Amino acid sequence: MTLQEIAQSINIDCENTKEISGLSTLLDSTQTEVTFLENKKYLNDLQNTKAAAVLINQEFASKVPEGTIALICEEPYLNLAKLSKLFAPEVIELEGEKPVIGGFTKVMPNVYIGKGSIIGSDCTIMSGAYIGDNVKIGNNTIIHPNVVVYRDCNIGNDCIIHAGTVIGSDGFGFANTKEGKYIKIYQNGNVEIGNDVEIGANTAIDRAAFKSTVISDGVRIDNLVHIAHNCKIGPGCILTGQVGLSGSTTLNHYVIMGGQSATAGHLEIAPFTTIAARGGVTKNITEPKQSWAGFPLMKHKQWLRLQGKIAKLLK
Amino acid sequence: MTLQEIAQSINIDCENTKEISGLSTLLDSTQTEVTFLENKKYLNDLQNTKAAAVLINQEFASKVPEGTIALICEEPYLNLAKLSKLFAPEVIELEGEKPVIGGFTKVMPNVYIGKGSIIGSDCTIMSGAYIGDNVKIGNNTIIHPNVVVYRDCNIGNDCIIHAGTVIGSDGFGFANTKEGKYIKIYQNGNVEIGNDVEIGANTAIDRAAFKSTVISDGVRIDNLVHIAHNCKIGPGCILTGQVGLSGSTTLNHYVIMGGQSATAGHLEIAPFTTIAARGGVTKNITEPKQSWAGFPLMKHKQWLRLQGKIAKLLK
Amino acid sequence: MTLQEIAQSINIDCENTKEISGLSTLLDSTQTEVTFLENKKYLNDLQNTKAAAVLINQEFASKVPEGTIALICEEPYLNLAKLSKLFAPEVIELEGEKPVIGGFTKVMPNVYIGKGSIIGSDCTIMSGAYIGDNVKIGNNTIIHPNVVVYRDCNIGNDCIIHAGTVIGSDGFGFANTKEGKYIKIYQNGNVEIGNDVEIGANTAIDRAAFKSTVISDGVRIDNLVHIAHNCKIGPGCILTGQVGLSGSTTLNHYVIMGGQSATAGHLEIAPFTTIAARGGVTKNITEPKQSWAGFPLMKHKQWLRLQGKIAKLLK
Repeated sequence: MTLQEIAQSINIDCENTKEISGLSTLLDSTQTEVTFLENKKYLNDLQNTKAAAVLINQEFASKVPEGTIALICEEPYLNLAKLSKLFAPEVIELEGEKPVIGGFTKVMPNVYIGKGSIIGSDCTIMSGAYIGDNVKIGNNTIIHPNVVVYRDCNIGNDCIIHAGTVIGSDGFGFANTKEGKYIKIYQNGNVEIGNDVEIGANTAIDRAAFKSTVISDGVRIDNLVHIAHNCKIGPGCILTGQVGLSGSTTLNHYVIMGGQSATAGHLEIAPFTTIAARGGVTKNITEPKQSWAGFPLMKHKQWLRLQGKIAKLLK
Repeated sequence: MTLQEIAQSINIDCENTKEISGLSTLLDSTQTEVTFLENKKYLNDLQNTKAAAVLINQEFASKVPEGTIALICEEPYLNLAKLSKLFAPEVIELEGEKPVIGGFTKVMPNVYIGKGSIIGSDCTIMSGAYIGDNVKIGNNTIIHPNVVVYRDCNIGNDCIIHAGTVIGSDGFGFANTKEGKYIKIYQNGNVEIGNDVEIGANTAIDRAAFKSTVISDGVRIDNLVHIAHNCKIGPGCILTGQVGLSGSTTLNHYVIMGGQSATAGHLEIAPFTTIAARGGVTKNITEPKQSWAGFPLMKHKQWLRLQGKIAKLLK
Repeated sequence: MTLQEIAQSINIDCENTKEISGLSTLLDSTQTEVTFLENKKYLNDLQNTKAAAVLINQEFASKVPEGTIALICEEPYLNLAKLSKLFAPEVIELEGEKPVIGGFTKVMPNVYIGKGSIIGSDCTIMSGAYIGDNVKIGNNTIIHPNVVVYRDCNIGNDCIIHAGTVIGSDGFGFANTKEGKYIKIYQNGNVEIGNDVEIGANTAIDRAAFKSTVISDGVRIDNLVHIAHNCKIGPGCILTGQVGLSGSTTLNHYVIMGGQSATAGHLEIAPFTTIAARGGVTKNITEPKQSWAGFPLMKHKQWLRLQGKIAKLLK
């Protein structure tokens, strides 16, 4: 699709006929992608974008760097939502290459494997599993019954995905119209899971809006964990039962999240951090190897002290 | 079934042979339904019931309005539980009309669609989905893999239901016998989902005990959300990841529930209310357009002030 | 496998050729099982073990009781993890006896039932359900669509398991190597579910590492509940929506856990205890029939008093 066609679809005039490959954030966009600026706190990122074009308010149009075309509009995020549909792949491919299944891989009955998918050797794909189109799974990986892997997601070698877990469902994203209607941001990214990852039962890992939600090598995830779109889970992280990560949370390597702990979105947690059960992280954690607890979060020692104070208060 | 037969099944004498269609609450019962009074705080509702008959203690029998027959017994709620089984439909229908599937609707392999179900046009029903008996689905709706829709539930047009989500499972209801046995309240209602609703992965929405659990037009629900029986979710509400709503929660239009927030049962939240992440609602919220946080819940501003006080306390 | 072979597999010299049947804890091991001591707080249990052999540090070798062989090593828990793989059964059995299905039991399409499994009479096994190898299900039990029961698990009579629920997934267990790699503790136990148990939708109940995770007669479990490995849920317990139990939690009879409440691991709760919604249990509760709330947990009355104090603080 050309930039001109894209712009026309949302009633913006633009004569540039550059071929556009997709949408992304200001910083992640390549020279064939379109991006957006909705919130002025990202004006710095605008300076560094390589995007072909940016959806932007008139107010900030003068700040668009050379090489990037300004697509001026009143509601950039809403227009992004409308454009996202143009780049959404089909929910299922009815045509395409048959899946390729490696040697010694067992595929049980009632399994669906989509077009163009490639499954390595020595895997076990159990009954009721759904492997979408264009999925890649490495060697020696076990997909337990009724697991769902949406299209375009990748899973490495030596992984175990327990029953009922969903990988690659749509992230929770939409723009509001003035009339109170929600316009879906089609989630055109995927999920990338490394090697030696084990994921418990009935967990849900959303695909990225753009690019990838990433689960790195060696990660361990328990049951009923919610991982929103565009999270990056570093190597060796441990997420215990019912943890919830909001969108674009970055956990550096070897972060441990206790049961039912959670994060607000768009934040980063330093390596070797431990969050106690029920801890609620609302800000970046920059100092590595510390233990935190509570909501709002405080150092674990401080939290213990607070409990002492509360006990006194009650006497 | 006649009222006489119903009464006999729980050893109550009643000669009225009126045909009874089902059970319901005091206020919702029609003239062909049987209701119950267990808790005297509902005596006001008793005055306004239109029910054919009411299971009731001797103590309150004199308050039963004209036109309603008192079925006097010691344990009204337990007897209701026993009666609920009489009106429970079969778990699956082995006989009945073949489902009707609209034009351009794709039904993938390994899908089950029950007797008497009607699916509109331009839908996609993905592998492993289970559509129970007598389900109605509108047009242009996507049911992702391994979704389960229990019998008698309805879903509108332009909906997206993500993988692993369960719609219409039994609400969590039972009466206790004196010996400590739980007698199931059969959940004979359903779930009604409007148009333009998107529901995330591995969410669970229970069917109503009587009548319907309602998800209105335009609602957005994230992953791993728990919606108990008889909830009413108004138009445009947003429920983020791991939210939990107890039974008979009513959210008016455009309520936003943050991650892991929750409600106690039988309460109502005013329009345009925002509940912050982890907020726990235990009382009605009557004032619209306010932001709340904490557990117990307080105004969001007050919660921020409390955190300041706690920080001081720690110094 | 002989003790000698087992020891050799982890580079320990041992000439004893006793036949070993599996692994277990110090107290639960039989005379044909191998156990381990990692944490010296279990030295008392070591005195009472009946195990054939124990993986143990040099430091504590002198405390190993007569009749038990010391397998001396530097990292007992890590070696246990390595041994656990030796005793892990196949993920699926390709050979074995056809399942036996009782009279009047309905098995719907797209169901998988494993080798050697026995299902009683008058059951309903709905579409997409996966019943693993060597599973036993009693009479008059309903397995809703897309439920997964892993191999070797047992379910009693008159149970209802709602859609999407997973029974017998692997517990969350692994040992760390010095290099930061996680070595899986294969979960070679199972789940044992009694009679008259109802379990909601999209719940996950993990199998035991050794022996059984137990759900006793009459238990009621709601949606999206997480029950970790080796929990013991006594008769008549009620677990409401989104409860999370950490590993080896023991609930005595008639414990009620409110919505989103949780327990830390390895603790025991007295009979007839009530934990309010969001309560977080971190210590044993020995006094029966008490109500608790908050996190950290306190008596429910005290918690109400605390809220009063906090309200005052805010004025």
